[in-house]
Amino acid sequence: MTSLQPLDVVEAQARRYLEERGRRVTEYLAGLFPASERPGRLFAAMNYSLLAGGKRLRPVLCLATAASFGADEEAVLPAAAALEVLHCYSLIHDDLPAIDNDDMRRGKPTNHKVFGEATALLAGDALLTYAFELLSQPLGIPAERQLEMVRVLSRAAGCYGMVGGQMEDILAERSGGSLDDLQFIHTHKTAKLIQASVVIGAVFAGVPAPVRAALERYGLEVGLAFQMVDDLLDVTGTTEELGKTAGSDERLQKLTYPALVGVEETRRLCHEAVERGLSALAEAGIEAPLLAGMARFIVARRH
Amino acid sequence: MTSLQPLDVVEAQARRYLEERGRRVTEYLAGLFPASERPGRLFAAMNYSLLAGGKRLRPVLCLATAASFGADEEAVLPAAAALEVLHCYSLIHDDLPAIDNDDMRRGKPTNHKVFGEATALLAGDALLTYAFELLSQPLGIPAERQLEMVRVLSRAAGCYGMVGGQMEDILAERSGGSLDDLQFIHTHKTAKLIQASVVIGAVFAGVPAPVRAALERYGLEVGLAFQMVDDLLDVTGTTEELGKTAGSDERLQKLTYPALVGVEETRRLCHEAVERGLSALAEAGIEAPLLAGMARFIVARRH
Repeated sequence: MTSLQPLDVVEAQARRYLEERGRRVTEYLAGLFPASERPGRLFAAMNYSLLAGGKRLRPVLCLATAASFGADEEAVLPAAAALEVLHCYSLIHDDLPAIDNDDMRRGKPTNHKVFGEATALLAGDALLTYAFELLSQPLGIPAERQLEMVRVLSRAAGCYGMVGGQMEDILAERSGGSLDDLQFIHTHKTAKLIQASVVIGAVFAGVPAPVRAALERYGLEVGLAFQMVDDLLDVTGTTEELGKTAGSDERLQKLTYPALVGVEETRRLCHEAVERGLSALAEAGIEAPLLAGMARFIVARRH
Repeated sequence: MTSLQPLDVVEAQARRYLEERGRRVTEYLAGLFPASERPGRLFAAMNYSLLAGGKRLRPVLCLATAASFGADEEAVLPAAAALEVLHCYSLIHDDLPAIDNDDMRRGKPTNHKVFGEATALLAGDALLTYAFELLSQPLGIPAERQLEMVRVLSRAAGCYGMVGGQMEDILAERSGGSLDDLQFIHTHKTAKLIQASVVIGAVFAGVPAPVRAALERYGLEVGLAFQMVDDLLDVTGTTEELGKTAGSDERLQKLTYPALVGVEETRRLCHEAVERGLSALAEAGIEAPLLAGMARFIVARRH
């Protein structure tokens, strides 16, 4: 199907899908933690960041993958939400004074600016833990698959994934770094969780191993492209467009592609990554216009 | 069997079991994160706290429960280790300046004193995440049981468990609190994870529902008793005996049983909790001298 439709149509469809399903994810997230539960302050802080906006890219990628292989989107929703809940924890902890010391996120004051450091720290811990509660609740699929989803998420998010990348990112801030370091950081800090979003959707739908392998490659490349665009937007975007402080990478002396190879070369590398991701799908004979469109959208996005 | 042996024999057996299996747990934990992996600084910080000593009470309770119902202790080890890994994360985050601002833990400088706040925060995040990686790796039991273990741990550790209790603990520091608040805090902050240690051992061994229900009651009461002893030791122990700063509850104006009802009444409540825990086992016809001994040991401990 992809080959029969012009690229801008595919991208527009993906954009609409992202908007619609993103709203559904937000609706689902809004129902998770009733503010009346004790301790109210903790749930308020969790809800604050969870409902502060955001593109919902990770959960929607999970939904899009599962739907592309015949799964019921409503049934996948808790697993998809787990990815956003986990992403949200990482933003809260990254913004803390001990790490990036950021005041703004998604156009609003950061969690610790509103609730204080202790509550923000705990809200992050609680969200991280809750992601695994979401993945382990009854989802109507075989337990083996759910356990595999837990395995994929914990691996992608922990010391061998996102947290490991975040650690190297901080170390590179202080001491600079090579292209090799940058690739390690992007892969671990960002791409592995985006890859996990795709893989978890695929595991939910029960795809066979060769299809999963192709989706792993797609997810990784799309994740790398996403981070390159993020770095580009930090240079070229405004604080208003981004909803977070523009130029903060430079302020923190972050190791980024634009800083290392320049804006134009970063754009080229980004397109290359997306093309490699789409080739992985094509080579495995996967026709998934939604996934193709999501990849295109990620390169074209403005915030 | 319990009824045929004098109490001090049962307790001495439990003490020996705790020492021996505690060493085995430490050995297992020492093999988890090779320092040569990247990022080395993160793994060094994780290993520092993981291998800084500690009684290994939670993993050993898990092993003791599983063994009491016929499971192979070596096979349970990764699940048992998950409980210590998770406990260890909570200590690192609790010690951070934003929360308790403690300099000493288990007789050594706290994680952030050695590695700095950013690394300590990430080491905690990584350990929390890794607990779920341990529970989801192949363990030679049905996936249903492992998924249930993930469910039990995430529920006990997150906003409805330990993190929720920690939040209320902080709020009570600032504004005081009632006996009701104290019970909420002890139950959530401490008892639920100790209960989960027992329940995870039981789920691993595949015990039937009524046995699990009795073990849930036992685990909760033992957990409550454990926290009361902890509060008592903070008043009566020395920094050297405890390996952490004695009297810190008073310094932080923590809400504790000794502060609220006095030392003697706390001792009485503690013994009552243990007796209720043992009655739960007896009423279900469970003969588990190890679990009885562990409960006795928890009341008698000096650090």
